[in-house]
Amino acid sequence: MKTIGIIGGGSLGLLFSAYLSDCYDVTLYTKTKTQAKCINENGITLHRQGEHHTKKVSAIPLGKNIKEADLIIITVKQYHLKEIIPFIQTLTIHTPLLFIQNGMSHIEILKNLPQRTLYLGTVEHGAMRTNMDSVHHTGIGTTRIASYRGEMESILPIVNFPWVIETDWYAMLVKKLVVNALINPLTALYRVKNGQLIHNSYFYKTMRLLFEEIASVLKLDSAFNYWENALGVCSRTSTNQSSMLKDIQEGRQTEIDAILGYIQTQAAEKRTSTPIVDFLYGSIKGIEEEKGD
Amino acid sequence: MKTIGIIGGGSLGLLFSAYLSDCYDVTLYTKTKTQAKCINENGITLHRQGEHHTKKVSAIPLGKNIKEADLIIITVKQYHLKEIIPFIQTLTIHTPLLFIQNGMSHIEILKNLPQRTLYLGTVEHGAMRTNMDSVHHTGIGTTRIASYRGEMESILPIVNFPWVIETDWYAMLVKKLVVNALINPLTALYRVKNGQLIHNSYFYKTMRLLFEEIASVLKLDSAFNYWENALGVCSRTSTNQSSMLKDIQEGRQTEIDAILGYIQTQAAEKRTSTPIVDFLYGSIKGIEEEKGD
Repeated sequence: MKTIGIIGGGSLGLLFSAYLSDCYDVTLYTKTKTQAKCINENGITLHRQGEHHTKKVSAIPLGKNIKEADLIIITVKQYHLKEIIPFIQTLTIHTPLLFIQNGMSHIEILKNLPQRTLYLGTVEHGAMRTNMDSVHHTGIGTTRIASYRGEMESILPIVNFPWVIETDWYAMLVKKLVVNALINPLTALYRVKNGQLIHNSYFYKTMRLLFEEIASVLKLDSAFNYWENALGVCSRTSTNQSSMLKDIQEGRQTEIDAILGYIQTQAAEKRTSTPIVDFLYGSIKGIEEEKGD
Repeated sequence: MKTIGIIGGGSLGLLFSAYLSDCYDVTLYTKTKTQAKCINENGITLHRQGEHHTKKVSAIPLGKNIKEADLIIITVKQYHLKEIIPFIQTLTIHTPLLFIQNGMSHIEILKNLPQRTLYLGTVEHGAMRTNMDSVHHTGIGTTRIASYRGEMESILPIVNFPWVIETDWYAMLVKKLVVNALINPLTALYRVKNGQLIHNSYFYKTMRLLFEEIASVLKLDSAFNYWENALGVCSRTSTNQSSMLKDIQEGRQTEIDAILGYIQTQAAEKRTSTPIVDFLYGSIKGIEEEKGD
């Protein structure tokens, strides 16, 4: 049986561990000893459409102890990536790594890694960690994977947890970035569920104003497709709260830097002004600060 | 004793009625029979700094029954002005009128009125109607008055309710417009008290971005003074909720059209783009729509 290491015990890490443990020998690397102990004792409970299943997964607190594996999947948030890089650097250059983060800022980090095989992934699942050892699969989607460097290995399809291989990692990440840049900050600012961005005619207009600015900065070819894709995500996840809205409500740091911050960096390089993005970035940072008080 | 008519039984109408009844014979024109009956029976109770005083004021439901008076003060919101114009038109051309509204859109309406003496006013008080016949004076400020047309009569100074005569109605309204355009929409969007716009460094930055756009559209001379004035209002009213935030929280219509809508009209005439104003306008209209559901 192939071995998989998963770094990060958040909602995505637990979701991947639970599903992949059906077909692979999974080791989950957690931030805390407490979480590792809890998972080793209880397994990971996956809640899905009213049912729940407990999966046996071995967990280890993350350190310079990552075992070589057929694939290591990194699911920590973009702003935690820097902290875990020293541990990844203890792996040989032959270990394939798969990075699943929002935004684009992690590409700079990838460039400097020695590993010969690096993949990038985007996730369309909805997942919510409800406990150290349990996760709710709130929205069934797919995982998209593209090679950033090296050959793409065939990946076993898993029932109810599909993988789609993409050929162009940049296009894949930008598509996801546009969705995140529209839905996350606006739902967090307005404190509404995803569907309201298309059902409320004024919110629809503000989303369009934001999109036009972003499309211009990123110089999107056939922008129409990106817009339609974002509307489709709003529609399919209409009753969901976005991750950024949840982060705000729970007083956690948001991923605004990885998302709108990246667009601002691109705009600065291209000497383009982005008034709405700047305003929205400041608004979310300010709301974050309020909640942190 | 001089006679004063006050049109509008909202927080400002009640505040003015209560204070002016100390020195003038005041008649308050209300929207509903119920409110008039209530005030005729109980008077108006003014709450201020822990004390309360009940003032005898006669009230009449508004119709084509406005009595000639030495001054008629119109305190209804900008978006209710059109409904009451037919009643004002029953007055002679000799009746002086004082209009106290936010924004600038009411100037167009004034142009077409036959009265020879028209004043404009802005209010720096905080007031909250807590009942049909009671009002809390939450922020002690001043009332500024300028002549739009005709001579300015001397107005009796009233203890604890001062009047300041301004010479330039346009400058006076623009100064108030800038304050309203910054504080009202941002506090309503962020759901924070006025002071957070200066205490939260990110909100301060978004307010500054918005100010720069507005200053450019309105072609403000010595923009620095307008900015300093707005910061001063944030500071003096730091623990207050803005009227727009209250409107949003209570599911009422906001004055966004009279405020940012006016700035958009000015921008259109001058062929200037206002991305942040447009985004913010749509955001507030959308939040209004959510609350109205």
